[in-house]
Amino acid sequence: MTSERILFKDYEDKIISANEAAFLIKDKMTVGSSGFTKAGDSKAVLPAFAKRAENENVAITLITGASLGHTTDTDLAKNDALIKRMPFQVDPTLRGKINNGEVYFIDQHLSETSELLVNGHLSKLDLAIIEAAYVDENGNIIPTTSIGNSATFAQMADKIIIEINTEIPTTVKGIHDVHLPEAYPNRKPYEITSVDGRIGNEYITIDPEKVIGIVFTDITDSPAQIAPPDEKTIAIANHLVKFFEDEVKAGRMTESLMPLQAGIGKVANAVLTGFTKGDFKNLIMYSEVLQDSTFELIDAGKMDFASASSITVSKECYSNLMQNFDQYKDKIVLRPQNISNAAEVIRRLGVIAINTAIEFDIYGNVNSTHIGGTKMMNGIGGSGDFARNSYLSIFVTQSASKENNAISHVLPMVSHIDHTEHDVDILVTEQGLADLRGLAPRERAKVIIEKCVHPDYKEAIQDYFTRACQRGGHTPHILEEAFNFHIRFKETGSMKENSMVSV
Amino acid sequence: MTSERILFKDYEDKIISANEAAFLIKDKMTVGSSGFTKAGDSKAVLPAFAKRAENENVAITLITGASLGHTTDTDLAKNDALIKRMPFQVDPTLRGKINNGEVYFIDQHLSETSELLVNGHLSKLDLAIIEAAYVDENGNIIPTTSIGNSATFAQMADKIIIEINTEIPTTVKGIHDVHLPEAYPNRKPYEITSVDGRIGNEYITIDPEKVIGIVFTDITDSPAQIAPPDEKTIAIANHLVKFFEDEVKAGRMTESLMPLQAGIGKVANAVLTGFTKGDFKNLIMYSEVLQDSTFELIDAGKMDFASASSITVSKECYSNLMQNFDQYKDKIVLRPQNISNAAEVIRRLGVIAINTAIEFDIYGNVNSTHIGGTKMMNGIGGSGDFARNSYLSIFVTQSASKENNAISHVLPMVSHIDHTEHDVDILVTEQGLADLRGLAPRERAKVIIEKCVHPDYKEAIQDYFTRACQRGGHTPHILEEAFNFHIRFKETGSMKENSMVSV
Repeated sequence: MTSERILFKDYEDKIISANEAAFLIKDKMTVGSSGFTKAGDSKAVLPAFAKRAENENVAITLITGASLGHTTDTDLAKNDALIKRMPFQVDPTLRGKINNGEVYFIDQHLSETSELLVNGHLSKLDLAIIEAAYVDENGNIIPTTSIGNSATFAQMADKIIIEINTEIPTTVKGIHDVHLPEAYPNRKPYEITSVDGRIGNEYITIDPEKVIGIVFTDITDSPAQIAPPDEKTIAIANHLVKFFEDEVKAGRMTESLMPLQAGIGKVANAVLTGFTKGDFKNLIMYSEVLQDSTFELIDAGKMDFASASSITVSKECYSNLMQNFDQYKDKIVLRPQNISNAAEVIRRLGVIAINTAIEFDIYGNVNSTHIGGTKMMNGIGGSGDFARNSYLSIFVTQSASKENNAISHVLPMVSHIDHTEHDVDILVTEQGLADLRGLAPRERAKVIIEKCVHPDYKEAIQDYFTRACQRGGHTPHILEEAFNFHIRFKETGSMKENSMVSV
Repeated sequence: MTSERILFKDYEDKIISANEAAFLIKDKMTVGSSGFTKAGDSKAVLPAFAKRAENENVAITLITGASLGHTTDTDLAKNDALIKRMPFQVDPTLRGKINNGEVYFIDQHLSETSELLVNGHLSKLDLAIIEAAYVDENGNIIPTTSIGNSATFAQMADKIIIEINTEIPTTVKGIHDVHLPEAYPNRKPYEITSVDGRIGNEYITIDPEKVIGIVFTDITDSPAQIAPPDEKTIAIANHLVKFFEDEVKAGRMTESLMPLQAGIGKVANAVLTGFTKGDFKNLIMYSEVLQDSTFELIDAGKMDFASASSITVSKECYSNLMQNFDQYKDKIVLRPQNISNAAEVIRRLGVIAINTAIEFDIYGNVNSTHIGGTKMMNGIGGSGDFARNSYLSIFVTQSASKENNAISHVLPMVSHIDHTEHDVDILVTEQGLADLRGLAPRERAKVIIEKCVHPDYKEAIQDYFTRACQRGGHTPHILEEAFNFHIRFKETGSMKENSMVSV
């Protein structure tokens, strides 16, 4: 086992247990850990550290690629082992601690964390923990199901712990393309001019002097939980498929469309699955995460190539992949997130970005992160990287939710803004699709109200817009009423006016 | 005159008067015109069209680089000659029409207009009007004091009118670097790896078949009106100079800093002028506009090179430049705005972006465009292009303004968001500088309140923040009070609580 997974002999006497490794993490350290959308995360050392924190006052600043799998963030949060966390999370327990102010969370564009570390705009990285399939003969790491920020962590950290996951076949080698930008002022372009372009190495470069421990694990990634499509997600997917068919007819795109990016979740999955039907062919993807739908499209012969920073799939899809890496090696590539999400590559390739909104407003501003304007859900993730630089920026959400449609997801004014109207081209709910290209704010409002708002809210929102226009302005608003929907929901449990007790 | 300015003989019989040219602009046309921050705009044809609209019902969609000079936008707006206008303007009359809904305005990132045209996401361009110093022997255009979107307009428009400005010396040739991206899917990187990098031509390529008229003018650019620095702008500049000195001491930058971008206005000018003092040297600039301060720094030997899309300077500076283009040719370059403002180049070079805010909030969200959340001022311009992709994103504003400090420019919640907290590193008012790097929202609020808020508002804003925190949330807010400052100002003429009549 060891000889197959550690080809660099100097590391052999560095093998330690996860518990021993957990004691190499010192109180108040800043730690960078592999892991992006539950893929390729630390499954031994961080959990052991969380366990250690059950009985000991130790806490760290933890930087990852994106979200972690299993109960790692839960356990770290529960045991007060986190001072600060960035750049993304999806954990209910951690979220609770963030929202009551016990854990400081920095919500970051996923492309930026690496920049901030390299530029010295975050505190020095004391330790990196990186999952590996194996270590090559030079001491470098063959990553697993994600790259995330791992290459930057390895470069910037004082010390490194490698977590070798024996459940990942060594045949994974070859799906990664690891490249880091040169130091200022000598940076070069990322010479990626097609989704399958390669500019780096199949491994993460490691300075062996920094390695203070190697830990073995055999725990697989947490599987993706994919909710089956429902009526609403299917309706949204159908609106989008129709839109793309019309774009092809109008001659703006071919049936191969442009490179696709899709956020995580059932809507995105339903949209991608929608492409298995119809005349679309030779599709390509330049995204953050490869999901089940990616592999469905590849297996169906509809998709030629997919680039991302991680693979997060269901249990079935995962085990198929583990046995057949060789079969996919000429069809997928994983990149560091500073490249999968790089503005320059997204713009150059002309990516179609499809992301999920929590809510959007009548002018096309989007809230991706905050419930009721205050409570963090997951984080902005890569949605800003893609929306800003895309060829087409699409946001989807249901028009209303909860019993009796108590929540409208289209609002006079969003309670928090992650994406300004400048960066939003198309909005879709199950009600319809609003094409905002070339429209000024008052025109946008008309189309959004007509196409996207749930019928239960149409009159109230139209009334707000009409009265706001009477007051004037480029972006008409009535500030004293702008959040009434949110305030009403908080007070009455419904955004509907007839449910109002008092405002 | 003609033989010196038109080296392409086929054009000689296309010379027409401005009035004749104005009749080539048909009702409902979409017209792209040169002009960026009052530099290199159409000074004959568009004004003649505005004049024509005095007595005739004709109106167009007008796309420019950025703002126009003289009274062109005034006259077009006054005579109802505009249906739609994008991507930027600074004209009081036009602003009035935009805010009462008579002219549709699309506020765009200055890097994006060109993309939208090329991708077919805006209506087809019927006509381009481009100011030129002269026409070369192949019929191509040597631009004047700006490039803006002119190269894209020339590429995309059905017809072209060239406006030859004889006041611009032909020695201007050589300061431009014109490059347009290849069509999808064959785009290449912009191979600019230093501020003085050149990747294009000294001229704008023209298809002579498209040219339907050549008009001569001798009107100079509208001069920049530079307000002299006052106590507040000097204080802001001093805070920033101190900050940069500290960054150099901390080893994060050298005394050459990183390439500078500065928005237009007296604060930006004061900051740049501040660099003439101190130990800064070999400064470089990668910006949108070259202003007086740029030339002061070059003449003082403090700045080695400056790149932008236009030159907008005072009368004195302008006439010096006109007589001495040769002297500056190895020190400045003008680029199309899709390159001066390109995400990839800004990130690659590590630009320090300094832009002016109308207001910002305690979490670092910035409003750059809308007064009272509804009324458009000028537009987002390039501030988003630079803030998002910069090495350091800095926004400046005065802490309070008007008699008795009736307006606080730091607020519980901004009434409109152009730049989200993700894209804002440093905030400065005359009160102090808030360094937000590595801080979570609640930490950001503490620093912003401490450093940036005017003393008259400190207690009220601290009180809001304290009570919001008691309610919880990652970004604590009290939605029903969030806009009280704005509402109070509208009702009482002051944001101060003791001025409140009723809310």
